[in-house]
Amino acid sequence: MKPVCLVMGAGAGIGGTVGARFAQEGYHAVLCRRSDEDGLNRLVDGILEAGGVASGYLLNAVDDDAIEERIAATEADIGPIDVVIYNLGAQIGNRSLADTSYKAFELGWRMATFGLFRVAKEVCPRMVERGGGAIIVTSATAALRGNPGQHSHAAAMAGRRLLCQTLNAEFSAQGVHIAHVLVDGMVDAPDTVGKMLGTERFEQVRATRGAEDGLILPDKVADTYLHLVQQHRSTWTFELDLRSFTDTPWWNHA
Amino acid sequence: MKPVCLVMGAGAGIGGTVGARFAQEGYHAVLCRRSDEDGLNRLVDGILEAGGVASGYLLNAVDDDAIEERIAATEADIGPIDVVIYNLGAQIGNRSLADTSYKAFELGWRMATFGLFRVAKEVCPRMVERGGGAIIVTSATAALRGNPGQHSHAAAMAGRRLLCQTLNAEFSAQGVHIAHVLVDGMVDAPDTVGKMLGTERFEQVRATRGAEDGLILPDKVADTYLHLVQQHRSTWTFELDLRSFTDTPWWNHA
Amino acid sequence: MKPVCLVMGAGAGIGGTVGARFAQEGYHAVLCRRSDEDGLNRLVDGILEAGGVASGYLLNAVDDDAIEERIAATEADIGPIDVVIYNLGAQIGNRSLADTSYKAFELGWRMATFGLFRVAKEVCPRMVERGGGAIIVTSATAALRGNPGQHSHAAAMAGRRLLCQTLNAEFSAQGVHIAHVLVDGMVDAPDTVGKMLGTERFEQVRATRGAEDGLILPDKVADTYLHLVQQHRSTWTFELDLRSFTDTPWWNHA
Amino acid sequence: MKPVCLVMGAGAGIGGTVGARFAQEGYHAVLCRRSDEDGLNRLVDGILEAGGVASGYLLNAVDDDAIEERIAATEADIGPIDVVIYNLGAQIGNRSLADTSYKAFELGWRMATFGLFRVAKEVCPRMVERGGGAIIVTSATAALRGNPGQHSHAAAMAGRRLLCQTLNAEFSAQGVHIAHVLVDGMVDAPDTVGKMLGTERFEQVRATRGAEDGLILPDKVADTYLHLVQQHRSTWTFELDLRSFTDTPWWNHA
Repeated sequence: MKPVCLVMGAGAGIGGTVGARFAQEGYHAVLCRRSDEDGLNRLVDGILEAGGVASGYLLNAVDDDAIEERIAATEADIGPIDVVIYNLGAQIGNRSLADTSYKAFELGWRMATFGLFRVAKEVCPRMVERGGGAIIVTSATAALRGNPGQHSHAAAMAGRRLLCQTLNAEFSAQGVHIAHVLVDGMVDAPDTVGKMLGTERFEQVRATRGAEDGLILPDKVADTYLHLVQQHRSTWTFELDLRSFTDTPWWNHA
Repeated sequence: MKPVCLVMGAGAGIGGTVGARFAQEGYHAVLCRRSDEDGLNRLVDGILEAGGVASGYLLNAVDDDAIEERIAATEADIGPIDVVIYNLGAQIGNRSLADTSYKAFELGWRMATFGLFRVAKEVCPRMVERGGGAIIVTSATAALRGNPGQHSHAAAMAGRRLLCQTLNAEFSAQGVHIAHVLVDGMVDAPDTVGKMLGTERFEQVRATRGAEDGLILPDKVADTYLHLVQQHRSTWTFELDLRSFTDTPWWNHA
Repeated sequence: MKPVCLVMGAGAGIGGTVGARFAQEGYHAVLCRRSDEDGLNRLVDGILEAGGVASGYLLNAVDDDAIEERIAATEADIGPIDVVIYNLGAQIGNRSLADTSYKAFELGWRMATFGLFRVAKEVCPRMVERGGGAIIVTSATAALRGNPGQHSHAAAMAGRRLLCQTLNAEFSAQGVHIAHVLVDGMVDAPDTVGKMLGTERFEQVRATRGAEDGLILPDKVADTYLHLVQQHRSTWTFELDLRSFTDTPWWNHA
Repeated sequence: MKPVCLVMGAGAGIGGTVGARFAQEGYHAVLCRRSDEDGLNRLVDGILEAGGVASGYLLNAVDDDAIEERIAATEADIGPIDVVIYNLGAQIGNRSLADTSYKAFELGWRMATFGLFRVAKEVCPRMVERGGGAIIVTSATAALRGNPGQHSHAAAMAGRRLLCQTLNAEFSAQGVHIAHVLVDGMVDAPDTVGKMLGTERFEQVRATRGAEDGLILPDKVADTYLHLVQQHRSTWTFELDLRSFTDTPWWNHA
C-alpha cells in the first residue's frame, strides 16, 4: 500500500503540482478542492497517465464535517495519511475595512486558520500513533505583516502561522514534521493568480516576466516540498521562504 | 462634554486601571466586562469617588450585536468615543491539541480577533469623520510565537496583531492611532493572574516577587497607555513591549 | 548636583533636542558630537538661556580612548551619568558593494556598534554600582532588514540592536534600563537629513510634508525618550517604533 | 574542469561534511580552516579516497589579505568558484560584559561579519560576470536575539544576517543565490561542540541524545545545503531554520 499525500487546495498551481510530484515519488495523491470538477479530473488523469495513483474530491473546507469525513474516508478506504499539504488560501484581494464584511472576515479565518486546526485534530493523533508524518503549509508574507486592505487575509494567515508553531511545539518530538512555507511572490498559477489577473494579462505576464523565471514555478516549489518531507529528523526545517531570484523580498522596499 | 474612553475588558487589572487613569485625565470612562457586576461597580464607584466620570456595562463581546449596540449607545448617550482600550484576552491556559475543542479554538478567535474587527468597523469611520482617535490594544507575546499548548490563544493573538497592522495601514494617515502593546510578563492583576494562580498563591507572589517590582503594575501600564494617546501625530508608536526589569524577555532563554 | 544626561551624537536633530529636553527636566546635559563647534555652542547656549545646564564637547567616537576619557571626565568633573542617549548613526547613503570600501564598512561598525559597546563597558558598571540608570539608543529600521545599498549601515545597526538585547539581558535586573528606539521615517533634522537633501530641497520638504506633520519632530521624539526614562521599573519598554502618522511603516509596501 | 565549492571554516562538523558532500556531487572542494593541519588533511584524504577532488588550506580569516589571496589563487589555479560555504562562527561561550574585551568583541565581528563582507567583495563580481553562483551562510539563532553573555557573538551574527539581506538585495537578480541557514540546536560536531563540552561529555551526549537523533547531523545539514544550491532560480530560499525534531525552537520556552 502506498503512503498517502493529502492535498487540501489542489488547484492548477502549487497544490495540484505538488500532489503530482508526490504521486511520482510513490505516494497516492488525494486531491481536494472546492470547485471545478473538470479541472480536478484533469489533475487526476494527468497523474494516472504518468503512471501514478491519485484520487480527487470536491470538498468545501468550511462546511461542517467536510474535512473530518474526507480524512476518515481516506484513512479507511485508501490508506494512512503520511503527508498533508495544506494549501488553502484566503486571499480575497485588497479591500478597505468598510468593504470587508463580517462574513468575509470570518470566511478567511475558517479557510486559512480553522481549517488547518481541524485537519491537525484529525491527522496528528493518527500520525503520532504511527510514529510520524508531515504537514506542509503553504503560506504567504501576509502571515508576517498586515498590508493595506488585508484585514481578513493577514489576520487569518498570521493566526495560522502561530498555530503551526504551537502544533510543532506539541508534535515535532512525536515525529510529526510541521513546515511553514512563505511563498513571497507571484506564482505561475492559472487557478489563482490567473483568475485575479484575467487570462490575457496573465499570459502577458507569463510571456515576459515568466519567461525570465520571474514567476515562482509550482514544479520547483514541489522540489522544495519534497525536500522538506525527506529531511532527516535530526535536521528539520520549520520555516523557509521562496521567491523568484528577480523578486524583491517583502522586507525590502521595491 | 468629556471625550470618551471605551474599555473592552475592564477587570481589576490593566483594563480597569487604565480606565481609571483616563478618567483622572478628563475622559468619561466607559467600562465593559463580561461578568462580576460587583467588581464592575467597585471600579465605577472608585472613579466617581476620585472625582472622575465613569459608566459600567456587563457585556459578552462574543454575543451578536453586543459590541455594536454598546458603541452606538455610547456615542448616542455619552459622547464621541475618542479612545478605545481593547483589553480582551483569550488565554485559557496551556492545553494539548486533544484538549482544545473546536469551540475553545473559535471562542479565542471571537474574543481576541473578531471582537477587535467588530470594534474597528464601528469606531474607525466615526473617528475618521471626527478627524482622529486612538485604539490601544493590549497584547501578549503569544502574538509573536506559538508556545506549547497555546493552539487557540497564539492563533487568536497573532491574527489580532496583523489585523492591527492592516488597520494602521488604512487609518493612521486618517488620524487614528493604532497601538499594539506587548505585555511580556506576569501582571499584578487579581481578576486574571489572581484567578489562574488562586488567591493564596497570588498573594505569595505579590509579597515576594511583587514586592521587588517583579510584577507588571497596571497603574504603570496606564502611564504608557496615556503616553501613547498623547504622542504627537508626527511621532506615533505602533508597537512596544512592557516587562518588569527582573523578567526575562520572551526572546531570551530563562 | 544634577543627574547627568550624556548625549553621544548631539546634532541639531534628535540628539541635541533630546539633550535640551532633559536639561529642561533637571539634568545636566553633556553634549558630544564630532564636528561643527559653532553648532555645538548654539545648542549649549540655547540650553543655558532656557535656564538649563549643559556642557559641550567635540569628540570623534571612533578615536581610541575618546569615549572612555569623556565618560571618565564627565563622572569626575560633572557628576554621575544617569542617562546615556546613544544617537550616533552610520548612514552613508546607498552604495553598491563595489562602492563600499573596507574602510567604510568598518567605520559603520566602529560608530554604530563598537562605540555603544565601549560606552556600555564604561557606564554599565557605574550604573549598577549606583543602583540604576538608562541607555536609550536611537535606531532605524536598518536594524531590522538589509535594504539595497545598506551593506555597512544595516550590518552595523543590526549588530547594535542585538548588542542592546544582550546588554538588557545582563543589566536590566541590575537596574539599568536599555531601550532601543526604531525611528522609521524622515526626521526634521537639519544636520543629517538636511545635509543629505541639501538646504533647498530640505526646506521644500519641510514646507510641504513637514507642514502636515509628515516629518518626525525631534521635540516629539524627546517626549517619548523622556517617558522611557520615567517608566517605573515594573513596566519597562525595551523596544518601540516611531513614525509620522502619514508614513508607511517599513513592513508595508508603499 | 569541475566547479569549485569554497568552504570557509572547514572543521569536522558542518563545514568539512558539506565540503565532502559537494565533492561527491562533482565539485572541487576547497577547504579552508584556521588550524589543525592533521584534521584538514584527514578531511581532504577522505574526499580523495571517496573518489572526489579536494584541496585544503590553513588560513586565518582575520589576517589581512588571507581571504583575498586564497580566493584569487583558487580562481587562478583551481577554477571558478561556484559555491561558497561561509561557515566561520564566532561563538566564544557566554561572557559577562566585564569579561568581554574590546579585542574579543572586535574579533567576533572580524570573523563573522567582516570576513563575509570580504568574501563577497571578491566573489560576487566574479559570479555576476559568469552569470551566477551561490553563497550559503551557516548561522545561528544568535543572529535573531541577544542572549545573556553573547555581547560579541550576537552582535556579529546579527550584523552578518542583515549583510546577507543587503547582498541578496543587490546580487540575487544578477544570479547569485544568497542563503542564510539558522542552525538552531546542538550539532554533532567534534571540532566545535566537542571541544566546548570536552571529549567525555561529548561522547555521552552522542550516546544518549545523539542516539535518538537529538543532535543535528552534519551529513543531513549537507542534504539541505545541496538542495539550496540546486533550487531553480524561480524559487529560491533566502532563509531557513534547522533543528532536531526533539529540540525546542528558540522562540519557545523550554
